[in-house]
Order: sequence, then C-alpha cells, then structure tokens
Amino acid sequence: MSSDNPPKVLVLNGPNLNMLGLRQPEIYGHTTLADIAATMRERAQQLGFALDFRQSNSEGELVTWIQEARGNTAGIIINAGAYTHTSVALLDALNAAEVPTIEVHISNIHRRETFRHVSYISLAAVGSIVGLGPTGYVLALDALAAMRRQPA
Amino acid sequence: MSSDNPPKVLVLNGPNLNMLGLRQPEIYGHTTLADIAATMRERAQQLGFALDFRQSNSEGELVTWIQEARGNTAGIIINAGAYTHTSVALLDALNAAEVPTIEVHISNIHRRETFRHVSYISLAAVGSIVGLGPTGYVLALDALAAMRRQPA
Amino acid sequence: MSSDNPPKVLVLNGPNLNMLGLRQPEIYGHTTLADIAATMRERAQQLGFALDFRQSNSEGELVTWIQEARGNTAGIIINAGAYTHTSVALLDALNAAEVPTIEVHISNIHRRETFRHVSYISLAAVGSIVGLGPTGYVLALDALAAMRRQPA
Amino acid sequence: MSSDNPPKVLVLNGPNLNMLGLRQPEIYGHTTLADIAATMRERAQQLGFALDFRQSNSEGELVTWIQEARGNTAGIIINAGAYTHTSVALLDALNAAEVPTIEVHISNIHRRETFRHVSYISLAAVGSIVGLGPTGYVLALDALAAMRRQPA
Amino acid sequence: MSSDNPPKVLVLNGPNLNMLGLRQPEIYGHTTLADIAATMRERAQQLGFALDFRQSNSEGELVTWIQEARGNTAGIIINAGAYTHTSVALLDALNAAEVPTIEVHISNIHRRETFRHVSYISLAAVGSIVGLGPTGYVLALDALAAMRRQPA
Amino acid sequence: MSSDNPPKVLVLNGPNLNMLGLRQPEIYGHTTLADIAATMRERAQQLGFALDFRQSNSEGELVTWIQEARGNTAGIIINAGAYTHTSVALLDALNAAEVPTIEVHISNIHRRETFRHVSYISLAAVGSIVGLGPTGYVLALDALAAMRRQPA
Amino acid sequence: MSSDNPPKVLVLNGPNLNMLGLRQPEIYGHTTLADIAATMRERAQQLGFALDFRQSNSEGELVTWIQEARGNTAGIIINAGAYTHTSVALLDALNAAEVPTIEVHISNIHRRETFRHVSYISLAAVGSIVGLGPTGYVLALDALAAMRRQPA
Amino acid sequence: MSSDNPPKVLVLNGPNLNMLGLRQPEIYGHTTLADIAATMRERAQQLGFALDFRQSNSEGELVTWIQEARGNTAGIIINAGAYTHTSVALLDALNAAEVPTIEVHISNIHRRETFRHVSYISLAAVGSIVGLGPTGYVLALDALAAMRRQPA
Amino acid sequence: MSSDNPPKVLVLNGPNLNMLGLRQPEIYGHTTLADIAATMRERAQQLGFALDFRQSNSEGELVTWIQEARGNTAGIIINAGAYTHTSVALLDALNAAEVPTIEVHISNIHRRETFRHVSYISLAAVGSIVGLGPTGYVLALDALAAMRRQPA
Amino acid sequence: MSSDNPPKVLVLNGPNLNMLGLRQPEIYGHTTLADIAATMRERAQQLGFALDFRQSNSEGELVTWIQEARGNTAGIIINAGAYTHTSVALLDALNAAEVPTIEVHISNIHRRETFRHVSYISLAAVGSIVGLGPTGYVLALDALAAMRRQPA
Amino acid sequence: MSSDNPPKVLVLNGPNLNMLGLRQPEIYGHTTLADIAATMRERAQQLGFALDFRQSNSEGELVTWIQEARGNTAGIIINAGAYTHTSVALLDALNAAEVPTIEVHISNIHRRETFRHVSYISLAAVGSIVGLGPTGYVLALDALAAMRRQPA
Amino acid sequence: MSSDNPPKVLVLNGPNLNMLGLRQPEIYGHTTLADIAATMRERAQQLGFALDFRQSNSEGELVTWIQEARGNTAGIIINAGAYTHTSVALLDALNAAEVPTIEVHISNIHRRETFRHVSYISLAAVGSIVGLGPTGYVLALDALAAMRRQPA
Repeated sequence: MSSDNPPKVLVLNGPNLNMLGLRQPEIYGHTTLADIAATMRERAQQLGFALDFRQSNSEGELVTWIQEARGNTAGIIINAGAYTHTSVALLDALNAAEVPTIEVHISNIHRRETFRHVSYISLAAVGSIVGLGPTGYVLALDALAAMRRQPA
Repeated sequence: MSSDNPPKVLVLNGPNLNMLGLRQPEIYGHTTLADIAATMRERAQQLGFALDFRQSNSEGELVTWIQEARGNTAGIIINAGAYTHTSVALLDALNAAEVPTIEVHISNIHRRETFRHVSYISLAAVGSIVGLGPTGYVLALDALAAMRRQPA
Repeated sequence: MSSDNPPKVLVLNGPNLNMLGLRQPEIYGHTTLADIAATMRERAQQLGFALDFRQSNSEGELVTWIQEARGNTAGIIINAGAYTHTSVALLDALNAAEVPTIEVHISNIHRRETFRHVSYISLAAVGSIVGLGPTGYVLALDALAAMRRQPA
Repeated sequence: MSSDNPPKVLVLNGPNLNMLGLRQPEIYGHTTLADIAATMRERAQQLGFALDFRQSNSEGELVTWIQEARGNTAGIIINAGAYTHTSVALLDALNAAEVPTIEVHISNIHRRETFRHVSYISLAAVGSIVGLGPTGYVLALDALAAMRRQPA
Repeated sequence: MSSDNPPKVLVLNGPNLNMLGLRQPEIYGHTTLADIAATMRERAQQLGFALDFRQSNSEGELVTWIQEARGNTAGIIINAGAYTHTSVALLDALNAAEVPTIEVHISNIHRRETFRHVSYISLAAVGSIVGLGPTGYVLALDALAAMRRQPA
Repeated sequence: MSSDNPPKVLVLNGPNLNMLGLRQPEIYGHTTLADIAATMRERAQQLGFALDFRQSNSEGELVTWIQEARGNTAGIIINAGAYTHTSVALLDALNAAEVPTIEVHISNIHRRETFRHVSYISLAAVGSIVGLGPTGYVLALDALAAMRRQPA
Repeated sequence: MSSDNPPKVLVLNGPNLNMLGLRQPEIYGHTTLADIAATMRERAQQLGFALDFRQSNSEGELVTWIQEARGNTAGIIINAGAYTHTSVALLDALNAAEVPTIEVHISNIHRRETFRHVSYISLAAVGSIVGLGPTGYVLALDALAAMRRQPA
Repeated sequence: MSSDNPPKVLVLNGPNLNMLGLRQPEIYGHTTLADIAATMRERAQQLGFALDFRQSNSEGELVTWIQEARGNTAGIIINAGAYTHTSVALLDALNAAEVPTIEVHISNIHRRETFRHVSYISLAAVGSIVGLGPTGYVLALDALAAMRRQPA
Repeated sequence: MSSDNPPKVLVLNGPNLNMLGLRQPEIYGHTTLADIAATMRERAQQLGFALDFRQSNSEGELVTWIQEARGNTAGIIINAGAYTHTSVALLDALNAAEVPTIEVHISNIHRRETFRHVSYISLAAVGSIVGLGPTGYVLALDALAAMRRQPA
Repeated sequence: MSSDNPPKVLVLNGPNLNMLGLRQPEIYGHTTLADIAATMRERAQQLGFALDFRQSNSEGELVTWIQEARGNTAGIIINAGAYTHTSVALLDALNAAEVPTIEVHISNIHRRETFRHVSYISLAAVGSIVGLGPTGYVLALDALAAMRRQPA
Repeated sequence: MSSDNPPKVLVLNGPNLNMLGLRQPEIYGHTTLADIAATMRERAQQLGFALDFRQSNSEGELVTWIQEARGNTAGIIINAGAYTHTSVALLDALNAAEVPTIEVHISNIHRRETFRHVSYISLAAVGSIVGLGPTGYVLALDALAAMRRQPA
Repeated sequence: MSSDNPPKVLVLNGPNLNMLGLRQPEIYGHTTLADIAATMRERAQQLGFALDFRQSNSEGELVTWIQEARGNTAGIIINAGAYTHTSVALLDALNAAEVPTIEVHISNIHRRETFRHVSYISLAAVGSIVGLGPTGYVLALDALAAMRRQPA
C-alpha cells in the first residue's frame, strides 16, 4: 500500500452492539457505540491511523468485511458480540485475512454464562482485552500501535 | 406509545418455516405459514392486538427486527426454528429489547435429536409452548392477552 | 365410552404443588391450587369437558392415577413438579396409558438449575406449556379441545 | 420437470470459500473457486448436467438457495465451509428440500480441530467426500451421475 | 428358619408391571403379570420353593417389602421396572436385606434409551436376566435353585 | 406460635434408616434408630426443644411431613438416606417449608460411590454434618440451639 | 435345513475363557470350560439341540465363526469375554448372521470396572444372562428352547 | 519400483465386508464384494493400476498387509469396517506404511450409532468417501489417479 | 505419649481464613479467627484437650504441620479453605499422619460454585461439618471428644 | 489513606515469570521482568501512581501480598502465571481484598493447552488483557487510570 | 520349575513394532527390533535370565502367548503398541497369567494424542517405563532382576 | 560448564516423600528417603554424576530449585508426589529449565484414584518410570547416563 496514506484500522462490532447505551443503562452505562467511535477516531488520529468503524447484525456481512480487509489493513479490532461464541466462519475469515487482530469485549465474559466462556475469535486473534468497558477499544488501538513500533 | 393504537404483537418465524405445509405434509400437515398468519390475525383482532407477522432465513435480520421492537411492541411470539438451538445473538437481542416474549415450537423438540433440546430463546422468554402444532401460536396470543390483564 | 358423558380430562399435580400460593407469594403470586382448579372447571364446562383435578406428593400414587385413566380419559394435563426431572416411572405410566397428554409448568424451568432442564414427561407428552403461570393450565385445556376438533 | 432440459445440479459453497487459492497458497494450493467451477462445468457437460455454481458468506442466503432447489434440481453438492459445524438451519433446509445431496470438504476435517469433526450437513446428505481437494467436487458430480443410473 | 417349611422366594415387580399384557400387546405380547405368577408358582412347587409374588407402584412399599424379607427369605427375584434406573433406596434396601437377589427385565434395556442402561439393582444383585421375556422370571427361579444346590 | 410451648424440632429419617443397628453391625455398629431417638430426646430436653422423631421409606410421606412443619417448627434435622441423592421433591419441600434445616449423614458419603456425592438436601439446608455417626444427630441439635441464640 | 437333523446351537467363548477354573480358583471356582461344555452337551441332548462349543482368543476367528452360522444355526450363546466391551466387529457379525443370540457372562460385569459396563454384544442379542456363573450357560440353552416353543 | 510395472493399488476390506450382498439385501442391495472387485479391476485397468483386492476379519492380518505395502504400493483404499472405530493398530500401520490412503465407507456412518462417528483411519488417510455405496470404491480409484497426476 | 499431658488437638486453618471477620462482615459476620480460637480454647479446656490453633496461607506449611502431628496428636480439625478443593498434597499428608480428622467449613460449600463441591480433605477425614458457621469448629471438638469416649 | 501520597498500584507476578527473557528468547523475546518493571514505573509516574512490583513462585506468598493490599491499594495488576489455572486460594484472596484488579497474560492462553483456558483470576478481576506481550502490563495501568477517572 | 534352568523372561511386542527402525528414522531412530532383542539378550545373560523375545500384530496371538507363560515364566516385559490403549483382552490375560509384568513404551505416550493416555496394560502391570527409547527395555530387565533380589 | 567437574543430577522429591518408610510400612516398605539418597549416591558415583538430592513440601520451593538448575545441571529426576497431578507451575518450570528430566513414581499411579492418572510432569519430561518402587530412582539415573552416551 502507498506510504502516503495512514495505515487503516478496521473496527468491527457484531450483533446488538448498536444497542449499546440505549438499553439497560444501569448495567452498560450511557456510552453509545457512536461515542466509542468518536473517542477511537480521536485516538486514531493521535496514533496516525485511519479508522474504519462498522457494526452489523449479520454474520455473513462481518465475514465479508474481514475478507475485504486482506492486504489493505494494518489491524482489526473486533468485538464480535454473540458471534464470538458461535461463529467458526468468523474464525476462518480472520485466519484467511492475515491481518493482526485484537479481540475486545466490554463485559467480563468469563464471569457470565458458561456458553460465553468460549471464543472462536481468540483462536485467530493476537490477544484480547476483556471486561474493561469502552476503554478496551482504545487500549486495543494503543496495542496495535505498540505492535507496529515493536514487531515480534 | 399512543393509547389510540392497539398494542402491537410481533410474530417472528425463523429459517425454513416458510416451507411449512409445502414439504413432508405427512409429517407436518397441510397448514402453511400463511394459514397460521391468517388464523392469528383473526384471533389478534378479537384480543385487540395489531399483528406484525414475519419470517426470515437470516439470523441477522431476525436480530434487527427484534431490536426494532424495543419500545413500541406489546409482545413478541417467536418460533426461531433452527436458530433456537444455535443463536446467542437472538438471545442477546431479546434481552436488549425488553419486550415480553413467548417461544413457540410446532413439534416437540424434546423428543427429537439431542441438539434440539437446548434453546437459547428460552433463556430470554417468559415461557414456551412446544409440540402443540399451529395451535401453539394462537395459545401464545392468548397468553400475551392474559399477561396484560394480570401482570405478575 | 358412552357418548352421553362429556369426555374426561384428568389434571395431575405432583409434589409440593399443594403449597402453591401459600408459600413465597412474592415469587409465585397468591393463586392457590384451588384457584387453578376453579378456573379450569369453569373453562372445562365451556369446552364440554368433565374435569378430574388431583394432587399428590407420592410418585406411586401418580403412577396409579395415570394407569387408571387408560381407556376412559380424553386427555391428561400434568404438572409433575419435581418428579418431572427424576421419574422414569411416570414416563412409563404415560406411555402405557395411551392418553393424549400435555405437560405444564408454572415457572420457566429452562431458566432454573440445570437438573430442572430435563423432563421425562416431555418424552411421553404431545407437547408442553412452560413458564406461563396458572394460565398455562387453561391453555392446555384449550389445546386438548383443539386437538379433538382437528386430530393430527 | 420437462425432459427436454438437462437435470440441474446446484453447487453451493459456504463462507470463505471465495478466498480459495488467494490466501495461504502453501496450504490450499493455487486452485481458485473459479477454477473449480470451470472444471465442474466441463465435467457436468460430459455427464449431461446443467450446473448452477454459487458461493455465499450468508447462512440465510444458503438456506434460501436450498429451499429454491426443491422440485427443480437433480442434486445438490455442498461445501458449507464453517457452517458445516454450526448450522442446524442448513440441515433443516436440506431435509425440507428433498434433493439428493453430497457433502464435500477440500481438507480432511477429521484431522483438524475437534469442533470441525461434527457435521450437521452429514445428517441430511447421502454421503460425503472429504480431504480430496478440488477433485472432491468432480467426484461428487460423478457420484450423482452414478446414483441416477442406479437408484438405491 | 425351620426345616419343615419350604424356603420362601419373594418376587417383586415395580411400577407399571401391573399393566403387562393389557397395553401395547403388539410389543409386550399377551402374557399378563397374573400369567407370570401362575407359571412361577407351578415351577416353584417343582423346585420346592414357597412363592410370594407382589407388585407395587410405590418405591417406599417396595423398600419395605425388601426389608421384611431379611432373615426369612431364601431369594429375591426383582423386576424393579422404572425404579431400576433411579432408586438408590432399593439398592440400599437390598444391601441391608442380605438375601441372594436376581434381577429380571422383560425387555432388553441395553437396546433402549440411554437412561435405561444404568441399573442400581445390579449393584446389589448376584446377577441379572435381561430381555428374555416372561421366561426370564422362571430362569431366575432355576438359578436360585442351582445356587442353593451349589453355593459359591 | 405460643411462647408457652417449647419450640419443636422435627427429625426426619429416610428409607432404610429403620434398619440401623439391625443389619451389618460390624459396619454400622449396634446403635439403633430407637437409641438415637432416645439420646436426642434427652439432649432436646436439656436444650428446651420438643422433639418429633420420624422415619419413612416413602418419599411422598417425607415431603408431606416437611410441608406440615411450615409455620410451627423451629428446625428440621434430616437424614434423607438414599433420597438425599435422587429427590428433587424433598429439595422443593424444604424450600417451601422455610424452616432452618440441618442435614445429617451417619457415614462419610464423600468416600462412597460417586452417586452418593451429590445431595439435593444440601441445596436447601443451612449446613450438614457428615460421617460422625449417631453423634451427628446430637450435634445437629446443638447447632440448632446455637443458631437460635445467635441468629445470623 | 433338513428336518432330520437336530437344530444346532453354537456356543462361543471369547479370550481367556480357556483359562477358566485353572486360574484364581478362589474367585472363579474350579469349574473349567470343559466342565461347562460337558454340562451343556447333556442339557442340549435333553432339549434336542446339537451343540457346537468353541473358544478362541482371536476376534477375527470369532467373527468368522458367527458368519458361518448364518442359515444353519438355531441359536448362538456367546460369552465374548473382554471383546464384549470393545468389539464392534462382533456386533456387526451378529447383526449379519441373523441368528437368535443370547449373551452370557459368568461374573456380574455391572459391579466391576466402568469399562466393563458397556456391551456391544447386547446391541445385537435378544437378551443376556449375567453374573449367574456357569449356570448362566445352561439357562441360556433353556431360554433358546423356550423361544423356539413360543416365538415372539 | 520398476517403471515397467503398473503402479499397485491395495484395496483392503475389514470384518464382515465378505457378507456384503448376502445379508439384508433390502438394506445393502445385492452388490457383493466380488462385484465390487470386478468393477474396480475394470476401472483400474483403464487408469493403469494393478489392483490387489483383499478382505479379512482379522485386525492383525490387516495390519500386516498394510505393513507389506510399504515401498511397493502407489495407494491404499481401505474400508476397515468395524475396525474403523476401534483400531489404533490400523492407524499406526497406515502411518508407518507411508502410502497415500483413501478411506471408504459404503453407508453414511455419521447417520448411524454414535460409536461409528469416530474413525481412527481418518487420522492417517488423505481423505474419505462415505455413504456413496459401492460407487465410493471406484471414486477412490479415480481420486488416487488424480493425485498422481497432480501431486499436492 | 505421657498420660500426664492432656491429649492435643491440632486446629488448622488454610488460606484467607486470617481475613475472617475483617472483610465483608455483611456476609461472614464479625467473628474473627481469634474469636474462634478463644471459644475453642475454652471448650477444649472443658473437654480436657490441649489446643494447638494455627493458620497458614502456604500449602506446604500446612502439609508440614500435619506431618508433625503424627504420633503426638489426638485429633485434627481442619478448615483448609481454598486448598480443600485443589490440594492432593493435604490429602496425602492426612493419610500419612494417621490422626483422626474432622473437616470444617464455615459456609455451605455445596451451594456455591461447582469447583467448591469437591473436597480432597473429605477423602481422608472421618467426617465433616459444613455451613454451620464458627459453631462448626466447636462441634468438631465435641465430636472428637465423643469419638474418644466411644471408639468405633 | 492520606491524600498526600500517590495511590498505590500492586503488580503481582506468579511462578516462573522471573525467568522471562532469560529462557527461550525465540519464543518470549528478550524483554525481562526487570524491563517490564522499569517501563511500568515510568508510565506509573506519568499517571500519578506509586508502583509496587513483585514476583513470587509461592502461592501462599502471593495470597499474603494480596491480603496486605486491602485498604491501602488503588489497584492490582496480576499475572498469576500457572496459578491462574489452579489456584482457588488466589481467587478467594482477591475477593477478600476488594481492590479493583486487572488480569494480564503475556501469551494468548486461549490458543494453548486446554488446561490454560480456565482462569480463577478472571472470576475476581474486573477484566483481563491477554496475549499482547509486555505491552499488556502498561495497558493495564492505563485501564486503572481510566477507571479512576470514570468510575462505573 | 527346575532350579537348573535360568528363569525365563518373556518379552512381548505388539502391532507395528516390527517396523521399528525401518520407518520414519528421523523420529524413531535407526534401532530395529532385532537390535533391541540383541541388546536384551546380552543383558539377560548378565542377569541370569533366559530371554524369549516375540512380536505379533495379532491381539489373539499375544493373548495366547501370555496365557502360555503362566507357571513357567519369571517376568513379562510388554510393549503392547496400539493394543495398549484398546485391549481389555490383554489386561485379562495378564491378570490370569499371574506373572510379574513391566510395561514399556518407547515414546512418551502422555505427550501424544488423548487416546494414547489410557493403558489397559497398566492396570495389570507392576509398573511402567515410558519414553526412554530402546533403553526402557533394558531397564525393565534390570527392574525384574531387582524385584527378584528384593521381593515386596 | 567446566569439563573438570562431574555433571550434576538434581533429584527432587515433592510433598510427603519425607514420610517414606516411616508411615504405613506394610504398604510402602521400610525404605526411607535417606536410604534412597544413599543408594543413588553410590550409583551416581559409578556413573560419574554429582548428585543433588532434595525434598520439599512447598510447590514454590520446588519451582525455584528447578529454575536454579537451568544451565548447570545434566539431568533432573523428579518424583513430585501429589503436585504431579495439580501443578502447572512445575510443568512451566521444567519447560523453562531445559534440562532433560525423568519422572519417577514409587507406586503405580495408574491403578489408584482417577485424579492420580493425570501428570503435568509427564508433559515436560522425556519419560517416566512408574510403580517400580525405590528401584525406579536408580533406573532413572541409568537412563540419564544412557541418554548422555547416545543422544537422540
């Protein structure tokens, strides 16, 4: 990719994350997905990333977006929501994309129902940030920046 | 919502329920999904409900429809078909929608393959009506009406 | 059986259902088993059924009652309480009785402890109505009536 | 269906199979999905089949395509990719379609992760061809032809 | 016990065995429990046993009958029906009674549902005769006679 | 309840505990259930409790006795014997009775067969005393007395 | 087969049964396999059976002997020893032979190690006689005779 | 190996496959193993293979035959029958032989009993052809030919 | 040991029990471990025991203390805290020490997380007192005294 | 605590983390635990935290350090190494300490052996950062700072 | 046995061990089974043992060889290869033979596939030597010699 | 390391091995850990090894000792006692130390309780010697010597 353009980071949000901040504020707080996008854009600019922030309720659409990232994207940050625990298709897409990926979850999935303890995303991701709320998204950006400064 | 409009009941049908009555009539009988819709509309009118009857093969579309019901719907009746047993996304959507939900299955899923014994929908629904054929849909309407007369 | 008599429906209640409405009203409400019996009798009369409503804490007595229903009963509605999850004897009795059976549970057993997710009754019943409170009993009567109008 | 038209074979490819040959060529080789389609078309012509070759990342779309095959298709060849291991909806669709179906996998799924050892497709298919690479698709065509010559 | 009296054999039948021959004759045949009792009495007389043949649907009553056999009974033949698979109480009663016990099942429980593959009775019995129909009861009598001629 | 009467403690013994001391004395010793009742009565008098000591082989009867304790009993001490491991009905009865309950087992059930490691009684009891022989019953009385002196 | 010849019963003994009576007599007693054969021959003559009594340590040889029984044998009595728990090949051979089969075990396999609780033979046999020592073989002969007098 | 001789393909059939076509023709059809051998020989000649077609009921003999194939055989086609599910020895033999191997099953083992869902052969084979009847053997030959034309 | 000295009872407390009464008083109450020690010392004096009361967060130290008790200690009372569920080393130490041991838990571990339902200590202890709060320690002293008066 | 002192963050490292950077540098890189401590100290100063950085191979010592943090520590960052997967004692200590805790793992434990997929630490932690190398420690500091700015 | 003859040690090698050193030398090295036999014979002579060294691919033949060792053999050293993990028949044969037995495996089976972690041989053997290569066989001889010098 | 010094072998003994020979001599014999050390020292001298023989009840101390062995030790012989089955920390330490390790167990752990069948040590060790008593330690020394003569 041309060195003139800032490296792109794709942020993917799975099903029901569009409801963030609108439902059950006593649990999830009042931060909406738009708020998270705004905070991330600001931080991305500081770090020199171009940000592509998306949400979909469709497993197939998320698969397609990951496929399209192949070869033109510096990093993927993904909160796959419920598909985290059920989607082998997302796992395969991430493996095919060959883009460094960080998994994010707003709540601590390990303290919830047993079926939320398994993550197919984790099998393809470099690592994950879990339970730290909206902050986790920003930390994931920082982690991508650190990985670029200091490749393994 | 305005008191002038009848309360809305959203009826959701998952994958393959559009094939009802067309395939294997020796097993499923000759009642089609359109027949069920017609019977339900009649009963809904008697009970004072506005009926919104839909079917989709797409998990994502079902998730979106449930999200859209938030705040404007008196009850959801859902036969999620095969997604009953695999979709955490539908469970999350129902929890976020905060609409009283009744699960319906035409056949007795507890007498079928083991993987049909688990229902993610049940974890979000008030209750379920299983194995009573197309009648189950109508009973679910009656149950919603009873719940409105006599809230817990 | 003689066509002069209304068809009989046997309603069976298992252990501890005699405590309904007396204990923990904040959870189970104030409806007693006697209230349910009264409501069902009224509805049975409308539907043309004779109602035989019973409760027992004894597994063996419930088995015997089911056996006695063979050949003289149009339908069984059973809330086997705790025996739902442990009694193979009730399953065998229902299979031997060859009477159309509908299972009822007041609470949503699928949202409770794991050992309540299995129902031996479901293996012999046509279907089940779960989590809809006392209303479930009345809906079961309606379902039996519908089944008689429209045999599979 | 009219005897004037060649019998149709529907070839379905699930999520990420559109990436074939483009990613990880050291593992999957350089054969693309288009190459497979071309080889199959040639073989189909020899066998007297009309070929309808498709790919989708969407579970719902695959379900719909299978439903549409009912009554107008001589055989389905399906490589459901990741949905093989998670989609009860595809199983139900295949059972409803009542079209002879052969399952294909390019890699030997039984030597991969445990969650790839289970196939819902196998429960509806006549049989499966696994691990034989792109050749498996062509063999599946041959098998369909043999089945038509010699019905069980 | 006095040598003047013939040794007693207690034959216990669990829940639903009183329905034998009355229900589903196409499966279980037309032999009733009374027929079995008659055949056993005849064979017992030949072998010099006094026969005490009983049936109960009550787990507690079966436990009590076993307890009463302690010290005055030469052998127990038990077909515990459904309690075979669920009753630790019967196991404990048999262990406390210290009477040689043979388990009988009319059908082959190992070819039926998984929950019928476990037998608590087997843990206390000398052995079992399974799947040989009413004949199994008579063979159990013969086995008790052989055990008395040739103690281990 | 009237302050003139001593608070009642109900002691319940399940199946086969009536055989205590009569069978296998080399294992269980020579203490009979009557001996335990006598020792407990003496201790109860010292502690100011009225003692109601019972045994039954019938699950249903035990359920009924627990139900009857509701509202007139200061504490239940229960050794449910084999029903400990199989009876959800006893669990439900104890939960409905809302009487402080202590579970007792004479032998150490955790060193016996696997199916004895699970206790439904424990899910409703304040606590349990296991493996300390007949002494466990007396300690349970002491514990009830301590709980009344020092409510949590 | 010609009516002049007595019906043949094939008795098959699996691995290590040739060691019977020679090893660990304190456990297995002093009865040898030859003793069992002699007793069975005598009983077979009374019942009008020709007896073919064999033992092999080889799974393949046992499979072959079962195959050869097809069409010329009235019944198979099989104690497959250790192969009971591991041999799907014997199960398939018995299913292919279509000869009424009774399974025998000298010891009570249900009171031994867990891996002895499963029997592939039971899946093909009419029934089984377990734990009754050498007597079990003779009872199996009696059972075959009874089955021939009174076919199901 | 000398280029003058056609490459050898070893076809191995496990226990009970010698009964093919002779037993239960309503299930397995009338094709015998000899028929399959004949069809394969014809196809092998077309493809330029020498065919060595064998069957054995003995696991050890099958192991030996696989060992002998090392270094002189172009491909193995194996239907290990029941040993498929139980024989680690065959797995080890195939791994040691280092000959490209294709697994064949006549019936769809994934729709049969659970213990038939596991295949040790699959862990050593390139791939498998399952459920396509006798045709599967011929397709396996074609696959071997394709693999030789186009090595991975 | 000299008859002049009172018999010693070793009371062992595992990790985090030193926090008792200091943390979460709304759950655990205000009784500290020092309070328990004081109450036990008083009761021990009444019973004629010398008390050695200890706490450690170190598994190894607890093992060593148990080893040192061998041959000079009349009884061990142990609340191993979290090591109850994970320490085979404590089990082995108790088995080697050959000192009568009673297990104590303040809370009812059977109503907490699944991983707290297993106790390695129970495999070596005479018995256990669970869920009765600080009182459980005193009851354990009483039980040791009773065991000394009346050895099994 | 006095407002004059900066809030303390306790960083705990479990067994074998002292070997970091010294062993297998091709896997773990050349960063040592001392390097991590230095980087964290620098970042802590920027954020206004006092850093207490420790390592121990002893489970008991780690428990004690956590206990000592109660009431004087603003946050705990813990990489418990192998104890993550086995130590209920650490879980209990963290719950008792009532200090906001973030779990860190250098490698992605979800892609390693199955026994590393379970974390007792996660049950007490706010959240976790996994697989992001030494950077994860610094991100955990940032997360603590964010949590203090914006309490939930 | 006569004291003039040196005590016999039987060395048994199971399926595929005849391929040792011939296949995959990069994994298993170049030591053949003949090399092991030669080394063992030399060491046996030093220790005063007569060596009987055998290999078979047949489970039944191995069983027979073990049976023949009864009463004339001082020790068995067995590497049962794949049958280690599947053969209950070998376990029974070893138990019947009553010859001290040491199990040997060349590779460390505990680091391989899960199905290699279970050993039926271990249930009958005194002990096992695993993962130490051909040396393990010689150490087993040394262990037998030590056991004879110092019987337990 | 300098060639002037003999290579060091570290022998590690886990919890309770210091009790060897002191407790339950009827089971474990009269050999103490000091006896084993003495025998090993003698054998080490013959083999040219310097021996460092240690025991600890502390998991952390064992971890530290293993860490210290890195780079200065020719081999580790470890009997981790109970920690064998529970300590991931020891597994990690051994992997970090990169010293050839042999696991020893005095008793045959595969014939004991199920929780002793798993060994974390085996996952890092070259191999293991199990059930051969104190002799196993000496054989482990011999194995280390053989490995040094003939590296893999």
